[in-house]
Amino acid sequence: MVSGTALRGAGAVVGAAGEAAPLRVLIDGVQTGLVPVWDRGIGYGDGLFETVLIRNGAPCQWSRHLARLALGCGRLGIPVPSARCLEGEARPLIEGLDAGVLKVLITRGTGGRGYRPPAQPQPRRALLVYPLPVWPPDCYTRGLSVRYCLTRASENRSLAGIKHLNRLDNVLARAEWTDPEIAEGLMLRDDGQVVGGTMSNLFLWTGTTLDTPLLDRAGIAGTVRALTLELAAGLGIACRERDLRPADLNAARGLFLTNALIGVWPVRRLDGRDYDPGLLPWGLLKAVAQAAQTAEWPTP
Amino acid sequence: MVSGTALRGAGAVVGAAGEAAPLRVLIDGVQTGLVPVWDRGIGYGDGLFETVLIRNGAPCQWSRHLARLALGCGRLGIPVPSARCLEGEARPLIEGLDAGVLKVLITRGTGGRGYRPPAQPQPRRALLVYPLPVWPPDCYTRGLSVRYCLTRASENRSLAGIKHLNRLDNVLARAEWTDPEIAEGLMLRDDGQVVGGTMSNLFLWTGTTLDTPLLDRAGIAGTVRALTLELAAGLGIACRERDLRPADLNAARGLFLTNALIGVWPVRRLDGRDYDPGLLPWGLLKAVAQAAQTAEWPTP
Repeated sequence: MVSGTALRGAGAVVGAAGEAAPLRVLIDGVQTGLVPVWDRGIGYGDGLFETVLIRNGAPCQWSRHLARLALGCGRLGIPVPSARCLEGEARPLIEGLDAGVLKVLITRGTGGRGYRPPAQPQPRRALLVYPLPVWPPDCYTRGLSVRYCLTRASENRSLAGIKHLNRLDNVLARAEWTDPEIAEGLMLRDDGQVVGGTMSNLFLWTGTTLDTPLLDRAGIAGTVRALTLELAAGLGIACRERDLRPADLNAARGLFLTNALIGVWPVRRLDGRDYDPGLLPWGLLKAVAQAAQTAEWPTP
Repeated sequence: MVSGTALRGAGAVVGAAGEAAPLRVLIDGVQTGLVPVWDRGIGYGDGLFETVLIRNGAPCQWSRHLARLALGCGRLGIPVPSARCLEGEARPLIEGLDAGVLKVLITRGTGGRGYRPPAQPQPRRALLVYPLPVWPPDCYTRGLSVRYCLTRASENRSLAGIKHLNRLDNVLARAEWTDPEIAEGLMLRDDGQVVGGTMSNLFLWTGTTLDTPLLDRAGIAGTVRALTLELAAGLGIACRERDLRPADLNAARGLFLTNALIGVWPVRRLDGRDYDPGLLPWGLLKAVAQAAQTAEWPTP
């Protein structure tokens, strides 16, 4: 077990890390929190990450996270870290943790100055453990207030869907509000299409069909988004990935959000418009919420 | 004067840094090359950089670099580092260096997990010194071969123009070719508009007018781009920032590229089409090349 306190101390060498530091961190298998400032992750956002929910000392939806990471590595041309290596490093790090967050961060590693990636990149992998954020206990049943953000989602077909490190659009969108009553902000593309929340995927329930934004030009295709589409299909609910506009959201029977940490969040209110979470397909929502927080290591 | 060798050794603590390491590096005024992996620069590309040409121990176009950095900090909501502080740290770092590159990197610093920026960010600043890349001696007069990239430029109106750390599109575009005969690749927006080179700005000479892509949705507005527009106006040359397409480039009398390190590069060939660098407005090109590499510290 890695000591969080010791590592906080190590991080403080180069600056005021303070309470922002993770509880535990491991870089390339070494107990350190430090990387060279010329790592391409910092220079260009040249890498990927996964945010994994930890329950009872094990990761939730681990194989989905690994699959998305592999997809992202393939897109960026970064060698995929082996599942065996990540599991071997993650197991002792999250052992004994009732609830928490494991962030897996992969960069292309160091390389010369300039955009050109090294021919033989030596990726750097960091595993960071954080406490699980606390949300109001009734948000799952009562639903949440959501707003529209002014900051538009960055668009690039080569980068859409994967969880890469170029996330300034999400940062600027999330900086737009401080009201603690607002749990999430929705982001649009420049042409007005809805992409999703700053940190979540959006689903729209028409009463008969489940719609979610097509993420071909912007956004991140979340693991719980994939889980939701899969469980919905299993329940015989028709699903569509498509072009959604604010007008479609206005006309919806209900809305909900998903991500790996929250699972499912019904929307109660969006920019002054009220929705009745009771009208959502709760059979599906319950199945998603349960599956999203079922933790287990794959059988070795 | 900071020892490059010593710092390479420090960098090697966390991984195989090898020849990728800068000659000298200073982080928040401290002789270290290491930052916590939970810095928001690495997590989200939440920061900015400048690439400054060093000649005779002094920076070229220093005030333009500072101005763009301040513009970028304003856009991202990151406190602007003072010119006095940056100068004070840069002076001893580049002293005695005949030629080199100073990379100034500013991040929002550390912060908790999640996109939301801290209310009181404590930015981190890193100054890195690299050797100046070597280009063929005749490229300035003979011109260079350039290609079109398949990777499209990322689009976001809030981020266009500034030199932020979300540069995966440039990385993927630069990874498209290894042929050393090709010096640069041009990137388009998804709608087919030309944005510029992966690491340079593009100018098109019609014979009477200087055109350069309007960077309202993508691209970086370079310091030498601004210098070129200013010098051209001074020489009575009409300039337009506008929507340029490959067809406009095909019809051009000539093309040239600019950036802070290369100054000016005439284009000799673009994807099989030949251009005669002799037809370019050389009075302007010479003035830009000279101004781009004139180094001096501001009078204290």
